Amino acid sequence: MSLVVIGSVAYDGIETPHGKRERTLGGACTYIALSASYFTQTSIVAVVGEDFAEEDRALLAGKGVSLDGLEQVPGKTFFWSGVYSDDMNDRTTLRTDLNVFADFQPKLPRSYAAQPYLFLGNIQPSLQRDVQQQMTRVRFVGGDTMNYWISDYREELLATIKHWDFLLINDSEARMLAKEHNLRRAAHKILDMGPNTLVIKRGEYGAMLFRRDTLFMVPGYLLEDVFDPTGAGDCFAGGFVGYLSERGFDLRNGHFDVHELHRAVIYGSVMGSFCCEQFGVERFRTLTRTEIDKRFAEFRKFTAF
Amino acid sequence: MSLVVIGSVAYDGIETPHGKRERTLGGACTYIALSASYFTQTSIVAVVGEDFAEEDRALLAGKGVSLDGLEQVPGKTFFWSGVYSDDMNDRTTLRTDLNVFADFQPKLPRSYAAQPYLFLGNIQPSLQRDVQQQMTRVRFVGGDTMNYWISDYREELLATIKHWDFLLINDSEARMLAKEHNLRRAAHKILDMGPNTLVIKRGEYGAMLFRRDTLFMVPGYLLEDVFDPTGAGDCFAGGFVGYLSERGFDLRNGHFDVHELHRAVIYGSVMGSFCCEQFGVERFRTLTRTEIDKRFAEFRKFTAF
Repeated sequence: MSLVVIGSVAYDGIETPHGKRERTLGGACTYIALSASYFTQTSIVAVVGEDFAEEDRALLAGKGVSLDGLEQVPGKTFFWSGVYSDDMNDRTTLRTDLNVFADFQPKLPRSYAAQPYLFLGNIQPSLQRDVQQQMTRVRFVGGDTMNYWISDYREELLATIKHWDFLLINDSEARMLAKEHNLRRAAHKILDMGPNTLVIKRGEYGAMLFRRDTLFMVPGYLLEDVFDPTGAGDCFAGGFVGYLSERGFDLRNGHFDVHELHRAVIYGSVMGSFCCEQFGVERFRTLTRTEIDKRFAEFRKFTAF
Repeated sequence: MSLVVIGSVAYDGIETPHGKRERTLGGACTYIALSASYFTQTSIVAVVGEDFAEEDRALLAGKGVSLDGLEQVPGKTFFWSGVYSDDMNDRTTLRTDLNVFADFQPKLPRSYAAQPYLFLGNIQPSLQRDVQQQMTRVRFVGGDTMNYWISDYREELLATIKHWDFLLINDSEARMLAKEHNLRRAAHKILDMGPNTLVIKRGEYGAMLFRRDTLFMVPGYLLEDVFDPTGAGDCFAGGFVGYLSERGFDLRNGHFDVHELHRAVIYGSVMGSFCCEQFGVERFRTLTRTEIDKRFAEFRKFTAF
């Protein structure tokens, strides 16, 4: 099966206690696609400026990611920079230059329209909805959002996620969206908004998957060294939806195996953990599927009782 | 098998977003013993003042807890009061009156000396060591400590835990003891200090068990309502060591099943979660073993993939 991902492709400036990078490939769409590419044929829809480097294009293409939907326009690529606290649980944004991303109007190449899996990265909800409407045979669709859309574009966001199979957000976003601190109650409020599946990411503390009749919880993978957490949540998303695409998972046929969703959460956690091991997207230059499956097996060993 | 627990028996004043209690039964030893009593014959060593109520004695005795080692002396029982933040992840201590606990010299009744399981609750390390030395046939011993002993009584603490099978502390205490932020590295440093098993509690985020050759991780049980977290960590300890005592777990015979330790962590998590459902020790007035085993089964269901 194949997957379409929309979102940001960017350059990041990152400082963590382990070091600093002035300018390195980043953006949610980049991380999601790199992560998903280990599982399934992945195509992206994004925009970059004239400064987008050939070597960065080559990294994505080298993973088999289709770049037919990567538009290059006059101007500069989205730039973000931030600095992490000593324990890396907090980060401060230093700069956000939207550049060409400010006018992003996703254009879906004709070759993408009939693909079955769709992940709508964090962009304006109405744009997410436009893309979904251009896809003709989607069988599993969902995405991410952020505090800004939840607070300032609430109605637009609700009208968008109403038509999603899954929503994948972090715990503070879930609390904000549901207007409820308790995560269990917040989750049930969100399931009333449309998505039948809700995945809540909790960073180093793991993740949870909620459906009306089930709950799945996984602790975070405990790394010896967290080098740079940038992109970990997006890599989680890529592993989650990438695995389901690989498996041809079909929520709508009524006979799906809920454990496939659980395994997708584990693969998400695995991909998020690898992402943290090096700066930016560096880990994906060497990461292999064998390493991924080995860590999946470790999760089984480390959680068995 | 049977278990001896030493530590504090106290009265607590508690305020959470759900309400307030001026004075209710508390103390680490109380919570540990109540929790362990669902699994094994439990005996306590503690001290209370003249104000200790007959009904509180009756609650413990009603669970089959042996009170032969509960000394009653002139003066007042240890009193602690605190108030929780809105999200209940932080609490502020309002008052700590050690009272009779200030001069606590644990006296082990002769009937306790040959019991095989020993949990040394958070008291001065040298007193923990004295008690351990009075026990003649211990086959599994360990306990808890706190930031005060870690910072101000470090050498005494190290000399004490050197002879323990397990140490059960929270994540900030583990980081402080190891002088290392990364929990995986911190755990290995602590395993070098003596205990062959380290359990790290992470509150609502679950717990982890480390041994030299293995790691076990469990997410926190997701409650619909957290009423009062007081004592949850101690109830975890009671479930952990209580279950191992029930099973006659014997680390020293070399043929033990490491999954028993994992299941003990799950029972610890189960007991901690029940503790939060009502104020103070209230939940233990009605809790049954059937409910406990049902929640254990839920943990299995919620973490299977």
